[in-house]
Amino acid sequence: MDQLDVKVLFGARVRHLRKEQGFSQEDFAHRVGLDRSYMGGVERGERNISLENICLIARALNLPVSQIFIGWTDVAPPENTPEE
Amino acid sequence: MDQLDVKVLFGARVRHLRKEQGFSQEDFAHRVGLDRSYMGGVERGERNISLENICLIARALNLPVSQIFIGWTDVAPPENTPEE
Repeated sequence: MDQLDVKVLFGARVRHLRKEQGFSQEDFAHRVGLDRSYMGGVERGERNISLENICLIARALNLPVSQIFIGWTDVAPPENTPEE
Repeated sequence: MDQLDVKVLFGARVRHLRKEQGFSQEDFAHRVGLDRSYMGGVERGERNISLENICLIARALNLPVSQIFIGWTDVAPPENTPEE
């Protein structure tokens, strides 16, 4: 699943959660405290967003950071699994 | 809890998980595919690491990304909680 672009996955997840909570993109960007066009880029999967901004988004969604990544098991498995 | 530096929190968490799995910093950096000195900076909380590199670390730990952030509820609550 290495082809899976985590930026795209993250952006789709943020968009889903934002809409679920009824925020417009503009209102949500304001709430997060980031530029609207930047947030648009995040949702489109164009931004390799930083840890600090991920935390700002989680806070704006009133969710634990882990919640944003729930179900992201697909991106986690290593190719080089250690002997077990 | 805004004073809480998420970079420091993330770094401590990565160091804990790395040691728990018995990797040296050097071996782990190699496994992640990132420079050893960069990974040292991450563990010391000096790096505002990107989404893609967070995913590389999760993969190297053979953990879902969400697992790295388990218990990070402290950083999530917004100051500007909406009316509820």
